[in-house]
Amino acid sequence: MLHKILIANRGEIAVRIIRACKEMGIETVAIYSTADDRGLHVDLADEAICVGPTKIQDSYLNMNNILSAAVATGCDAIHPGFGFLSENSTFATLTEELGLKFIGPKGTVIDQMGNKAKAREMMIQSGVPVVPGSDGLIETVEEGKAIANRIGYPVLVKASAGGGGRGMRIIRDDSEFEELFQTAKLEAKMAFGDDSMYMEKFIENPRHIEFQILADQYGNVVHLYDRDCSVQRRNQKVIEEAPSPVLDQKTRQRMGEMAVLAAKTVGYENAGTIEFLLDKHHQFYFIEMNTRIQVEHPITEMITGIDLIKEQIKIASNLPLSFTQDEIKIQGHAMECRINAENPHQNFKPSPGTIEVLNLPSGFGVRVDTAVYQGYEIPPFYDSMVGKLIVHGENRDEAVAKMKRSLEELVVTGIDTNIDFQYAIMDHPDFISNDYDTSFIQQHMRELEVG
Amino acid sequence: MLHKILIANRGEIAVRIIRACKEMGIETVAIYSTADDRGLHVDLADEAICVGPTKIQDSYLNMNNILSAAVATGCDAIHPGFGFLSENSTFATLTEELGLKFIGPKGTVIDQMGNKAKAREMMIQSGVPVVPGSDGLIETVEEGKAIANRIGYPVLVKASAGGGGRGMRIIRDDSEFEELFQTAKLEAKMAFGDDSMYMEKFIENPRHIEFQILADQYGNVVHLYDRDCSVQRRNQKVIEEAPSPVLDQKTRQRMGEMAVLAAKTVGYENAGTIEFLLDKHHQFYFIEMNTRIQVEHPITEMITGIDLIKEQIKIASNLPLSFTQDEIKIQGHAMECRINAENPHQNFKPSPGTIEVLNLPSGFGVRVDTAVYQGYEIPPFYDSMVGKLIVHGENRDEAVAKMKRSLEELVVTGIDTNIDFQYAIMDHPDFISNDYDTSFIQQHMRELEVG
Repeated sequence: MLHKILIANRGEIAVRIIRACKEMGIETVAIYSTADDRGLHVDLADEAICVGPTKIQDSYLNMNNILSAAVATGCDAIHPGFGFLSENSTFATLTEELGLKFIGPKGTVIDQMGNKAKAREMMIQSGVPVVPGSDGLIETVEEGKAIANRIGYPVLVKASAGGGGRGMRIIRDDSEFEELFQTAKLEAKMAFGDDSMYMEKFIENPRHIEFQILADQYGNVVHLYDRDCSVQRRNQKVIEEAPSPVLDQKTRQRMGEMAVLAAKTVGYENAGTIEFLLDKHHQFYFIEMNTRIQVEHPITEMITGIDLIKEQIKIASNLPLSFTQDEIKIQGHAMECRINAENPHQNFKPSPGTIEVLNLPSGFGVRVDTAVYQGYEIPPFYDSMVGKLIVHGENRDEAVAKMKRSLEELVVTGIDTNIDFQYAIMDHPDFISNDYDTSFIQQHMRELEVG
Repeated sequence: MLHKILIANRGEIAVRIIRACKEMGIETVAIYSTADDRGLHVDLADEAICVGPTKIQDSYLNMNNILSAAVATGCDAIHPGFGFLSENSTFATLTEELGLKFIGPKGTVIDQMGNKAKAREMMIQSGVPVVPGSDGLIETVEEGKAIANRIGYPVLVKASAGGGGRGMRIIRDDSEFEELFQTAKLEAKMAFGDDSMYMEKFIENPRHIEFQILADQYGNVVHLYDRDCSVQRRNQKVIEEAPSPVLDQKTRQRMGEMAVLAAKTVGYENAGTIEFLLDKHHQFYFIEMNTRIQVEHPITEMITGIDLIKEQIKIASNLPLSFTQDEIKIQGHAMECRINAENPHQNFKPSPGTIEVLNLPSGFGVRVDTAVYQGYEIPPFYDSMVGKLIVHGENRDEAVAKMKRSLEELVVTGIDTNIDFQYAIMDHPDFISNDYDTSFIQQHMRELEVG
């Protein structure tokens, strides 16, 4: 078993990983920027090392400093969390070259799945259904238009290196093709330093459904069922639930098999997520694989009883999976609301500042993953998510009721938050009756904003 | 279904009940004394009514005011929680006479089980094993000595109306009989207004194991397995775990059957607990039945997934149980530490005052049931329990590890607490190896106090 892990992250996911390590008797080293010296992860870890100034390029993306910190403190592994360096193949490879374990897949696999066009090619070859589209990169506007006409508008152009909705545009006809394509390309260049683009048919009003997988180094791959992340704003997930309330058993089983096939195809190791779109006709299409733990992993933990971070560490410690697919059962229904420091009435403008009063909900089936505390000052330099409110009930109705009472109990003053906005979603008849798709927030923004 | 419930209690159990009601769409009315106007239960309930001044006799035990509040606010039921009026048969009967539902058993059943000698008689008649002892009340010292010599010293003399360790003494030989018997009798008179006494053989070094039962009004009775509450100080529970780590499957099944038989014998309705002692030879003996929800009920919820407060309310709403004995399964291992405002280094002297900094642990498998918040002033008039830290792991080792990391994260300043004391127990080799009995704290006090 690994004995000392550096956590190359901050905020709630760093705290989440420290908690798992403590429970496993593994020592932890936190890293922090000069803006984060009062971070809870710094306080909870056994050791903490400042890796640079405020800017993420100088601290949380500073590979040299992070790797040096890991070596200097005698760590035998690095957990990257999500975001930051978690899907950086160079970082993964450098970590391994230093003789430390990178808690995630091999750098080569990160590269293959990070290149969306490449990932798509591999899925097509292995028989995993994908959205019809360009089989490869699009070099010119003319080529793009020709493909769009072949597969039929609307289409989605996407940055090959993309993620989080950046470098992506929906195009509905030839007339707007050039402008939108060039804008997306430019955005991709700025965000990822890579403007290679590909194209897919745009699936109208889909559900976003993803499967959690775990794979050990001995070729054992299991899925831990699905998460429905269809409540999104600008392609960013807002609420997630598990299991998906729209899947029938047959589709669920088939998607699970495809998720396992996808992971096996790339020789995957550790925890990963296969993301699909599901259309109105219950057809599903692979869209991408995330080669890291995800923000929404707790809802899978709640319905399966399996601690995903501990499983990641066990896999990285060369242990085989301790359960088979048949032993993984869905129990009840879980939901997660991402609590952000932002103002929904001002176009979700981030709202950093000091938390004056904090009251976190608790009780049976309620979990809060957060790194904030009363008196904590949220720095303006990083993302606006301050916590995740997670509930687990016997069924979806109970989960919704539990989430509503938990949101009512949650008090955060001193900053703006999306708590009321989340409550308005939970209270919306279309959400309650499960009659929604990924356009839900966009469609109902006016009603939700009132909340 | 009931539609509006008055909660005749305060603190964390009042909050616990309000949370269940909110999730069920039931309105709530809180009651409070003048000392509790800043209580969280007052804030969370739909309505709150002051029922009297600080002294519990004038407020939380003030039947007239509480019943008037229930009627005036249009409630159709009263939930008594634990302590206060929860085992007061007069209160239960008066509630029902006003046409409101008392969420608990009938007043007559509370009386039968509250009278420990009577309860014992009923169990003997129905075949539930009891500790050898006086079959009835002891009138004189001479009679007591004769019985003690028949069943063999050491013996335990107990107040028939007792509970919580009051009115109770261990007697080891004839020479100390009279003095200890009279002291216990006097204590009983003062505490309960009733000095009738009975006697039992004192079981040396037992484990305290209790079974949770649920009974509907249609004669369906199930048990939800066991809780081990052997870590006690002066007969007050300090740590509870479920399931008991000492029971083999055969004994567990037999005890469960006896618990169900005990409940059926008295025509029990609603949630209740059958308490047993288990000796070194795996013989078990009924000691008493608690006719209310218990402090430690959450650990049963964690291992069974069943919300006991919701079940109480469903039963009181005349619904039949929605599951059978076979459908109740033990999953994993749960533990609870009672967090008290008290100083273990000063003989556990209560430490009321204002909580200056509060940080509650959270994460996968961690639950905190509390009614305190940062800035809250704990009044000096009520009991010293300020919260319950509950964890749920795959097995006992994981539960212990989770409890330790949760206790490490728990920060309460401004008052003294037993957090370090609880940590010292979790860290004690005899606790970890499960080699302990109800004398554990007494035996190891010096080591634990250092913690």
